[in-house]
Amino acid sequence: MTPLELRSLLAAVGEGRINADDAHQRILAELKSLPYEDLGFARVDHHRAIRQGFPEVILGLGKTPDQIAAIASRIVERGHPLLVTRADEAAWTAVHLRIPEARYHSTARAITVGREVSPGKGRIAIVSAGTSDVAVAEEAAVTAELMGNGIDRVFDVGVAGIHRVLSERDRLSSARVIVVVAGMEGALPSVVAGLVDVPVIAVPTSVGYGASFGGVAALLGMLNSCANGVSVVNIDNGYGAGCIASMINHL
Amino acid sequence: MTPLELRSLLAAVGEGRINADDAHQRILAELKSLPYEDLGFARVDHHRAIRQGFPEVILGLGKTPDQIAAIASRIVERGHPLLVTRADEAAWTAVHLRIPEARYHSTARAITVGREVSPGKGRIAIVSAGTSDVAVAEEAAVTAELMGNGIDRVFDVGVAGIHRVLSERDRLSSARVIVVVAGMEGALPSVVAGLVDVPVIAVPTSVGYGASFGGVAALLGMLNSCANGVSVVNIDNGYGAGCIASMINHL
Amino acid sequence: MTPLELRSLLAAVGEGRINADDAHQRILAELKSLPYEDLGFARVDHHRAIRQGFPEVILGLGKTPDQIAAIASRIVERGHPLLVTRADEAAWTAVHLRIPEARYHSTARAITVGREVSPGKGRIAIVSAGTSDVAVAEEAAVTAELMGNGIDRVFDVGVAGIHRVLSERDRLSSARVIVVVAGMEGALPSVVAGLVDVPVIAVPTSVGYGASFGGVAALLGMLNSCANGVSVVNIDNGYGAGCIASMINHL
Amino acid sequence: MTPLELRSLLAAVGEGRINADDAHQRILAELKSLPYEDLGFARVDHHRAIRQGFPEVILGLGKTPDQIAAIASRIVERGHPLLVTRADEAAWTAVHLRIPEARYHSTARAITVGREVSPGKGRIAIVSAGTSDVAVAEEAAVTAELMGNGIDRVFDVGVAGIHRVLSERDRLSSARVIVVVAGMEGALPSVVAGLVDVPVIAVPTSVGYGASFGGVAALLGMLNSCANGVSVVNIDNGYGAGCIASMINHL
Amino acid sequence: MTPLELRSLLAAVGEGRINADDAHQRILAELKSLPYEDLGFARVDHHRAIRQGFPEVILGLGKTPDQIAAIASRIVERGHPLLVTRADEAAWTAVHLRIPEARYHSTARAITVGREVSPGKGRIAIVSAGTSDVAVAEEAAVTAELMGNGIDRVFDVGVAGIHRVLSERDRLSSARVIVVVAGMEGALPSVVAGLVDVPVIAVPTSVGYGASFGGVAALLGMLNSCANGVSVVNIDNGYGAGCIASMINHL
Amino acid sequence: MTPLELRSLLAAVGEGRINADDAHQRILAELKSLPYEDLGFARVDHHRAIRQGFPEVILGLGKTPDQIAAIASRIVERGHPLLVTRADEAAWTAVHLRIPEARYHSTARAITVGREVSPGKGRIAIVSAGTSDVAVAEEAAVTAELMGNGIDRVFDVGVAGIHRVLSERDRLSSARVIVVVAGMEGALPSVVAGLVDVPVIAVPTSVGYGASFGGVAALLGMLNSCANGVSVVNIDNGYGAGCIASMINHL
Amino acid sequence: MTPLELRSLLAAVGEGRINADDAHQRILAELKSLPYEDLGFARVDHHRAIRQGFPEVILGLGKTPDQIAAIASRIVERGHPLLVTRADEAAWTAVHLRIPEARYHSTARAITVGREVSPGKGRIAIVSAGTSDVAVAEEAAVTAELMGNGIDRVFDVGVAGIHRVLSERDRLSSARVIVVVAGMEGALPSVVAGLVDVPVIAVPTSVGYGASFGGVAALLGMLNSCANGVSVVNIDNGYGAGCIASMINHL
Amino acid sequence: MTPLELRSLLAAVGEGRINADDAHQRILAELKSLPYEDLGFARVDHHRAIRQGFPEVILGLGKTPDQIAAIASRIVERGHPLLVTRADEAAWTAVHLRIPEARYHSTARAITVGREVSPGKGRIAIVSAGTSDVAVAEEAAVTAELMGNGIDRVFDVGVAGIHRVLSERDRLSSARVIVVVAGMEGALPSVVAGLVDVPVIAVPTSVGYGASFGGVAALLGMLNSCANGVSVVNIDNGYGAGCIASMINHL
Repeated sequence: MTPLELRSLLAAVGEGRINADDAHQRILAELKSLPYEDLGFARVDHHRAIRQGFPEVILGLGKTPDQIAAIASRIVERGHPLLVTRADEAAWTAVHLRIPEARYHSTARAITVGREVSPGKGRIAIVSAGTSDVAVAEEAAVTAELMGNGIDRVFDVGVAGIHRVLSERDRLSSARVIVVVAGMEGALPSVVAGLVDVPVIAVPTSVGYGASFGGVAALLGMLNSCANGVSVVNIDNGYGAGCIASMINHL
Repeated sequence: MTPLELRSLLAAVGEGRINADDAHQRILAELKSLPYEDLGFARVDHHRAIRQGFPEVILGLGKTPDQIAAIASRIVERGHPLLVTRADEAAWTAVHLRIPEARYHSTARAITVGREVSPGKGRIAIVSAGTSDVAVAEEAAVTAELMGNGIDRVFDVGVAGIHRVLSERDRLSSARVIVVVAGMEGALPSVVAGLVDVPVIAVPTSVGYGASFGGVAALLGMLNSCANGVSVVNIDNGYGAGCIASMINHL
Repeated sequence: MTPLELRSLLAAVGEGRINADDAHQRILAELKSLPYEDLGFARVDHHRAIRQGFPEVILGLGKTPDQIAAIASRIVERGHPLLVTRADEAAWTAVHLRIPEARYHSTARAITVGREVSPGKGRIAIVSAGTSDVAVAEEAAVTAELMGNGIDRVFDVGVAGIHRVLSERDRLSSARVIVVVAGMEGALPSVVAGLVDVPVIAVPTSVGYGASFGGVAALLGMLNSCANGVSVVNIDNGYGAGCIASMINHL
Repeated sequence: MTPLELRSLLAAVGEGRINADDAHQRILAELKSLPYEDLGFARVDHHRAIRQGFPEVILGLGKTPDQIAAIASRIVERGHPLLVTRADEAAWTAVHLRIPEARYHSTARAITVGREVSPGKGRIAIVSAGTSDVAVAEEAAVTAELMGNGIDRVFDVGVAGIHRVLSERDRLSSARVIVVVAGMEGALPSVVAGLVDVPVIAVPTSVGYGASFGGVAALLGMLNSCANGVSVVNIDNGYGAGCIASMINHL
Repeated sequence: MTPLELRSLLAAVGEGRINADDAHQRILAELKSLPYEDLGFARVDHHRAIRQGFPEVILGLGKTPDQIAAIASRIVERGHPLLVTRADEAAWTAVHLRIPEARYHSTARAITVGREVSPGKGRIAIVSAGTSDVAVAEEAAVTAELMGNGIDRVFDVGVAGIHRVLSERDRLSSARVIVVVAGMEGALPSVVAGLVDVPVIAVPTSVGYGASFGGVAALLGMLNSCANGVSVVNIDNGYGAGCIASMINHL
Repeated sequence: MTPLELRSLLAAVGEGRINADDAHQRILAELKSLPYEDLGFARVDHHRAIRQGFPEVILGLGKTPDQIAAIASRIVERGHPLLVTRADEAAWTAVHLRIPEARYHSTARAITVGREVSPGKGRIAIVSAGTSDVAVAEEAAVTAELMGNGIDRVFDVGVAGIHRVLSERDRLSSARVIVVVAGMEGALPSVVAGLVDVPVIAVPTSVGYGASFGGVAALLGMLNSCANGVSVVNIDNGYGAGCIASMINHL
Repeated sequence: MTPLELRSLLAAVGEGRINADDAHQRILAELKSLPYEDLGFARVDHHRAIRQGFPEVILGLGKTPDQIAAIASRIVERGHPLLVTRADEAAWTAVHLRIPEARYHSTARAITVGREVSPGKGRIAIVSAGTSDVAVAEEAAVTAELMGNGIDRVFDVGVAGIHRVLSERDRLSSARVIVVVAGMEGALPSVVAGLVDVPVIAVPTSVGYGASFGGVAALLGMLNSCANGVSVVNIDNGYGAGCIASMINHL
Repeated sequence: MTPLELRSLLAAVGEGRINADDAHQRILAELKSLPYEDLGFARVDHHRAIRQGFPEVILGLGKTPDQIAAIASRIVERGHPLLVTRADEAAWTAVHLRIPEARYHSTARAITVGREVSPGKGRIAIVSAGTSDVAVAEEAAVTAELMGNGIDRVFDVGVAGIHRVLSERDRLSSARVIVVVAGMEGALPSVVAGLVDVPVIAVPTSVGYGASFGGVAALLGMLNSCANGVSVVNIDNGYGAGCIASMINHL
């Protein structure tokens, strides 16, 4: 039973087409059924859509294409939207064979199947510091879009040329949540958070070399931000940022 | 001009007691005045209350009691609410001398002067894993309360006895944002985030010994959370978490 | 002389088929012989089976296929069970040529030849947090099975959906030792150890990205576990965990 | 209801002195009562004695003497054994005032109140590398003794004079579990584990200077042990090691 | 022979008051004398004033007050300017006793004796992010002033309120070299360097807490700066920055 | 409008060929036009040439050959000099197709198009410790040359044979700025800075193995230099060092 | 039996004063006696003098003054030389009470009782980079002197003034082994090792601040030395270096 | 002029075949010639053979095959012995083409050309812990052999089976210097050093996985050795260890 089916069922009750007690039994049965499906190598958590408003998302990393495709099929069969992150070409091929309507976002390395979901209330700005941060920024954007949010992409506005971000102040101010993606010294979230009064989700990227230590310098910079309103997710975790931004935008 | 004065002014315009053009001039003058006050050793950012809805907050760490008291006076004189974090007894004495209405929260190590501020929309749950995490949890609570939010404290529900957190599921579910404070392995935010569908702000604490490395173990655990909706602030940064939670709760 | 041959010899003495003095001499001769066999590049420790109840195990990492096959042959010739860990396809080919009865466990990357060994007293539960942890979990399972233990695999029960592990409480409670394998934040051992009263061997895996630092986040999480009864082995060391679990299960 | 009261109750049922249904009701009532007692700053987990065979243990670190004494009183009132670790003189004074029968182990920095508990099956050897490791070794010993185990202390047998540990081989071999405590390079657990066939719980200590990094060198040495049967707990975590050793010794 | 005495000597030669050959001999004698004075515990490098334009500077850290005073006396006796860094009150007392004209800069923790030195060509701006960074900024300022440079202090202009640094653009643009001192995320040098076309010397400070790791976060942020023209010195090394800025300003 | 066009325009005004007011308008229009060109994935900062004396430089790392070529074209079309760093063969091919006059420096992995720029005042010495440091040293040299500086290469003068660097003392002394490139222990900048009185820009390289940790050992050695005048850039950042050296040499 | 007593005994045999068989028995008895004396908290390894030419040395760190004095008494009673390292004033007081002939070296923080030992063959040079490294250098010198070696102290010859070390080339060249003690960047051992052809034992010190990380920078610099013949001991381990130098000098 | 030619020359002087003044002149000329040969990308330090008894050794890492072959040719042309370390097949091919008498040691990845050198006084034992450490142990052995030392290889005697190393006690005791090569926990040097009274050069290897961190665990273990006489070289630096051992063995 998808959220949409649930809504239809309740509507039918409201309209007298279905008896309240019958509906009660159907919903209870659904809820009391096993909250996950055991594929042996994975337990697909179908309950998550009810519990958290969005079904399980597949992290492609460390899974074989076959495992990814099998889990994806189960999710799509239930009528849920699909999101596979960190999906390479092999994973895409395997999923596409089984789910023809799936779509591949090559920059974001994500596979999606869209469904009608409840819309976010405002717009989410996705801001990136440099051209090399775009892959992670796109992962955040694809995630938040699939979850029903309007997205405003503000790319390549790093702090070395501060006029670039200052000139986008209006777009930043009109967002309800802002995701800021940056590598190297990771200073952009501090500057952005100082300009606005909405929450900023900072995503450090592994962009850089030498003492950037694969994103650690950016991560530390963001955790130590002197500006209010900055919280941080894991290095390169565009998905996580998009997901949190969507949660906030649905409040 | 405080936000309240601004509101009164606009009301007066609406009621015809003040001419719109005059009001326009007064507001412009206020806005165009220097956005900060230079004390030599510090620039007090009075503009922040307009820009971000809450005035500058004083981090007590690394400032002398006199510096803290001087900045605090300037903030209170403008009619702004006051928050000093990481304030020891010496700072408290210095501030109290100048600002008799100030209040000291000894567990949270915070000094406050409350003002009427716009209220948050829901409740913020502040969850802590152990007794030793309470100081940081209280810093978050005092911060969020001062910013106009209702707080629900859910303390000492660490994952080693999972029934403790499960038995508080209802309180967690009824919050609009959740701050989770934990030291040691920092696993509690993952478990909490798996139970709810609202954003979780995770605060690692420096509680622990040996390989906890002053909170690094908890920090890494939270950054690598397998659950959706967890973003992280600096180790022991209860203030930051309270502030972000308030921002979200005001959306 | 294998443990089985020793048992036969002693039985024969008990039945009067062999004179006690002769048996004494044979056993002494065996014990006093060189405790290892020197292959030039390696000293095969045949004494270990007597000293520790299980013969030397070959870590495939950093050895050539030929070296692995040569050591493996010597072990099998003595009638000992064989375990090669971290064995790639090349190692498997080289070993298989010399030891046709060997078996390859591709998920666990292990080569085995089973022998009759003394059985463990209870069951060992092997628990894993995610699909990507299965390789390490299988290495633990193959190891413990070869050492004579009954295994119960409880896979993909990570803490983000806490109901998954709670619903397996009975299987966990009925094990005599539990091996818990987890990457990312490594929180699962804390939760499991809080549910049971038997020792938990925690195995961090290198699964994750960014600030998981190749398993360091999970390792630290496990070392700082707030639950009783958790001890930890090296990152990805499924073999070590299986071996300790077997030792405990034979007590 | 303590485990001993439970045993008496069941005995009474067996002897016909109490009706089985009545006993059933009393046990159920006990089990269904709140599994913890909420002191505001702490939730005392009285259920743990039933779940894990030993009640909650108080980690003194980061708690005030008053908090420690309050929690300790609740535990002792229920008839449970008491263990406070990392207890300084102030904590001891506060506890002693409320619980006169408590005992202070100054080397181990532990406070205990003993109760009759189920005895362990064999002996636990506590081995330490140097004189400076004794505090941690004693914490392990006090813990395991309180939990009902016989202890054999084998102190100051570091690997720089290998004859010291070799001359204690018999004592090591006759233990059912071995706890090995070592700082500096942490090599002792590898040598001990190579001599015996029982599990070795390794405890790194923060003893050393310079590149010992507060016990990290010893911790890494133990995690990378080339010997079978070594699992590791946190730096200086004598309590954890004693607790795991006791669990194993009760199997 | 101080640089000034050398200049006088050469002037006297130019004016015919001293014979060129005699002057040659005197200078050679001076140069060929031992290039350092051996105090047993220290070799005072008097040659450095000739080689590098400024005499040896005394790092107070790890030296006793007596050692500091003894070295200081030797330097002042030669007519050189004196700079002692990281000088606590005890060092100051010992030096003041021997050198009454010395001066103590308590914020900068520096002791100085000024001498006429060659003047720098432009002004050096010393910029700091927060009130807590002032000690290090002052160390840089005192150093550069003693070395003959005009200083412009621009304090408390951190990036969280970007208007503070933007409003000082003119002062920044008119400096010949800029020293930027910042703790926490260390983002200020990147922003400043993007606004000007002169070299920026970045000084990370140990200001911050938690994941600032005593200045490491700021250090990494500065090393990874995306802006041109930023080079970095050690954490809290105000002296080093002032010295380099002076060298550049004398080119 | 390039700097050269600007100079022509002003000359024309001076010679009366163009009216001052018209020139004023043309310059203002240029300045007020968008300070960057938005390519979607990148914002080319054409303003930088006016603001900082040299246009935007392209870091090849993390950009596709097509992106690099597109940005490069825009820069060259404006009449600016071009520098692409970390450019592999694929990037070179893509750029060469669009910009036939570009030149590839294979050791330095840099692509350049030279333009007339304002000349530096003195010479820049580029010093390297070992043969393996040459790639980074060359990146610094190519950068500084393109920016109008005379370069003196002093290669392979590491401290293990101190006579090698001592014998080049004259060349070092005659430079106005020195860039020192070294891997392994990174000691060369300390020795060089002790010999001269000009600023030394130290570049750690990732050359070395084992405990060199990809250049961290050299980086730390340079940050902790006991010599005056050493500031440091990121590991392998030859470009940054060349750029700073040029800035200083243009003062 | 001390080495001297052994020598007397053998001389008596050689001179016919004692029968060879009797001597044989006495020596065997001595050798076969317990190789250590068990004080409960420590096992004093009297055998070490025979095995390694010098008796056990007491590391004062982590031992109480009473423990130190007790072990020291046992060593001196056997006629062995005494060395206590890291001995503070309290330890010295306790030892002096029991062993009046003991001597305290306050700079080196060492307690010694000298005995006749076999002399080293050449001289050991102890070289230090700065005044703050002297404590560690003196620990090395006191150790090596007690072990029978002639010492040449060459202090404060750091690489920032390379002429200081070059001017001591002759003293360095005439040593048979060289100990080099340095903090900060730790470059001195590389330079010294490039000047001589004898082994250099490098000792990093915890001298420095910021990114010296308590001696880690110096340690890494020394491990990555580009010069031949440098081996390294732990941070601040003057004792270890003196001991190794003595071993080499006795070969 | 090679060392052998020098010896012939002096012999001729001794026998009156060459006039002492002439010889003086020839030697002076040789010494005064440039101490290195400049190949552009490298300065070959021919003086090192005179200064340190062995010519420059080529580290293959980071050099092209052509660079290696060019430097190697210059060294061999001077009559010096050749050692190239970290030489892959491509380097070997390039060197072999130019120097047919060169020899490739594939396990040690070293290229050598032997010459008559002065012999070491005793034997050097090269001890390794495991089969996977052999490549590094062989690099040490090849180095020390080329430098004129007799080698005793004692391989695969790790501490998990302590009888393996104890049974080789006699070979260890008869060496004049011992090189001990070990990965994982790096405990072998401590055990070996406790058995002998000669210097032990410890070489950590990058063998291991997980928390061995590429040899860091072994490195820390060795630096923190509780045994006397252990000094340490860089991870995998078999060459360095062989070289130091040879230096000591030539004293």
